Amino acid sequence: MTLNFQGDFSLSNLPFGIYSTEGDSDPRPGVAVGDSILDLRRINDWAMFPGHQEALDRALTQPVLNDFIALGKPVTNYVRAVLRNVLTERPDYFANLPEFTVPQSEARLHLPIRIGDYTDFYSSIHHATNVGKLFRDPENALLPNWRHLPVGYHGRSSSIVVSGTPVHRPSGQILPTGADVPVFQPTERLDFELEVGFIIGKDSKLGQPISVDEAEAYIFGLVLFNDWSARDVQRWEYVPLGPFLGKNFASSLSPWIVPLEALEEFRTPGPEQSPQPLPHLRTSGARNLDLKLTVGITPAASGVETIVCETNLRHLYWNMAQQLAHHTSNGCNVRVGDVMASGTISGPEPGSAGSLLELSQNGKRPLLLDDGTERTFLRDGDRVTLRGFSERNGGRVGFGEVTGEILPAPPSNLQGF
Amino acid sequence: MTLNFQGDFSLSNLPFGIYSTEGDSDPRPGVAVGDSILDLRRINDWAMFPGHQEALDRALTQPVLNDFIALGKPVTNYVRAVLRNVLTERPDYFANLPEFTVPQSEARLHLPIRIGDYTDFYSSIHHATNVGKLFRDPENALLPNWRHLPVGYHGRSSSIVVSGTPVHRPSGQILPTGADVPVFQPTERLDFELEVGFIIGKDSKLGQPISVDEAEAYIFGLVLFNDWSARDVQRWEYVPLGPFLGKNFASSLSPWIVPLEALEEFRTPGPEQSPQPLPHLRTSGARNLDLKLTVGITPAASGVETIVCETNLRHLYWNMAQQLAHHTSNGCNVRVGDVMASGTISGPEPGSAGSLLELSQNGKRPLLLDDGTERTFLRDGDRVTLRGFSERNGGRVGFGEVTGEILPAPPSNLQGF
Repeated sequence: MTLNFQGDFSLSNLPFGIYSTEGDSDPRPGVAVGDSILDLRRINDWAMFPGHQEALDRALTQPVLNDFIALGKPVTNYVRAVLRNVLTERPDYFANLPEFTVPQSEARLHLPIRIGDYTDFYSSIHHATNVGKLFRDPENALLPNWRHLPVGYHGRSSSIVVSGTPVHRPSGQILPTGADVPVFQPTERLDFELEVGFIIGKDSKLGQPISVDEAEAYIFGLVLFNDWSARDVQRWEYVPLGPFLGKNFASSLSPWIVPLEALEEFRTPGPEQSPQPLPHLRTSGARNLDLKLTVGITPAASGVETIVCETNLRHLYWNMAQQLAHHTSNGCNVRVGDVMASGTISGPEPGSAGSLLELSQNGKRPLLLDDGTERTFLRDGDRVTLRGFSERNGGRVGFGEVTGEILPAPPSNLQGF
Repeated sequence: MTLNFQGDFSLSNLPFGIYSTEGDSDPRPGVAVGDSILDLRRINDWAMFPGHQEALDRALTQPVLNDFIALGKPVTNYVRAVLRNVLTERPDYFANLPEFTVPQSEARLHLPIRIGDYTDFYSSIHHATNVGKLFRDPENALLPNWRHLPVGYHGRSSSIVVSGTPVHRPSGQILPTGADVPVFQPTERLDFELEVGFIIGKDSKLGQPISVDEAEAYIFGLVLFNDWSARDVQRWEYVPLGPFLGKNFASSLSPWIVPLEALEEFRTPGPEQSPQPLPHLRTSGARNLDLKLTVGITPAASGVETIVCETNLRHLYWNMAQQLAHHTSNGCNVRVGDVMASGTISGPEPGSAGSLLELSQNGKRPLLLDDGTERTFLRDGDRVTLRGFSERNGGRVGFGEVTGEILPAPPSNLQGF
């Protein structure tokens, strides 16, 4: 028996996550390879990472990756390099050691990091323009600051969950059309947001900005991110201080963190930025990533999935280096495990928008799903799955998926408890 | 020698914090009494908390109070009750054990908690009205949602610092008057915000709202909170997703967490709420606190402090139970150590506004300080000190202070690094 290296989790990828099994419920660090997981603790116990064994031993006892990530890219990428060499030379090496490898189908995946702060950007020009046209002036869809800085806001860390966690339909204050007094009820405009997040890999100091050129050294890796949104709650609450309860009931993270270095060969230049950003936000070269993204909806009744969005991260107007430089330009510090998400990723073509708000034109144009039902916003029982991968010359690096099913609002909520 | 029980840290108070000394740099839990600190670890080692010694032993080894707080109010208030009894019977008991007591003047105070998430509300009707008059319509100063829900937004945890930490003047993008292209430069409108924060004492579950009646069981204690703000940065960035870099460069927390129970006798009804809130936000009884608050500015050159604001927490329109019930009404969960701040606290009288933005009418009416200098916004070298205490029938429970000095912008910032 040899390990399979096909699909998203190729030998070029080797992403990190936290898993447990029925036989050992202790959440522990692993590396995804093909359809298997390699146990990092056991491999380290075998002295396969000389020079780092003690430091790894301490870091790998944690049920999250923070301490491991904090060892730094030289160590985390050394671990990947060793594993890649061994698996290239001897594809059967771990496969015949069942304690070292677990089929992904038998593992439970956990939130891979303890998240300190979570920031959400708004960096897709197509998304910002679509939203501006729907809710503001179609002739001046972008606000005056949008092309000068990567607009962002703080989100809630406590309610970030790992892929597979069901999401209860949230209740909230909503202003019915034509009314001037709100009601409290389950949201009627539950939406997904297709995003890609990056995980901070290195602490910075309060008061010390990170420059655009230093920024990538602070980015450990990337994940898929679904920033669930209740549009009716958001609409009533968000002026003047921004989204709050319309967003913080849940966000879903993909379980495998793909190291930035695994995506190196998929770099691509971003869109031209006009006007040119101020000096501290100026980047050159290939700072975007060619990452194909899709969103599927699977209603519980039919079990038939419809892909409702196909887009690409390459369309992002503001790149990650610009986001991080902007975020710290006032001296704000970042910490290992912080999550920074892109904001909804929409492309220029029809069907490339990363939210139902845009795809259904704020509910005015229902989508026909492959099972014959229609959607403006999400219904109870809908499963939403985001997927993403990069592919070039036969080489592939992917994220797997982040998925979540909508459960009905808990009954206690219906009466305003 | 006996301990002094005068001032903010009376025997009714007994707040918790984290301290270290020159002789022992290990940050450890303590209780403030008069002008001293009692060492909780050593007192627990003496078996003074029977039935809880082991649990306390584990919790008190941490350099933050989270694990201690998570033991629950029955334990944390039992610890206070035991100490109060001993100190009442034998005021000299600890005073003659120098390893058990440290003068506050010889201690260094640390951030008392590891903060998961930080939320800032906007719950003072006088503040919201003042700001609305300055920036929007004087006739319709409050936005339509303001009287229906406690408006709030997420802030940044990583940059919350303990009292005494200096704050560098942040740089940021600012739109000069009349310009349509921003510049990157140090803020010219640096402000304080007088706030009171509460610390979450109990985890809640994702998907399960906390009702207004349950809310106080989730509130461990209160602190003073200075939410430093760069008004020019904030103004350019905040539409449509709210404040970001104008706030997240630093917020300062007072070092001693005053347990909610210590403030019991200072409860007072809040202002009448009109219209009546929706059922899930309705409270009755004395849910506000009669807490006197002041803000002082001390310029470095003169060393002369001017009290620029005197107000009271009792004016807060939305109380803490309403804030927490609203925050979790969509199922958002909270965790021990989360901070929720009130938003700027302003009163109805002149001189009772909790920010320079209001006190100087957005810079149009400079304040004359006692050293003869004028202020619209903060200058380098200004020390800002917030103080707060409750007093009734000779009994006093206070917060001490939260203070911070403004340092110049780091030179690297001036060139946009």
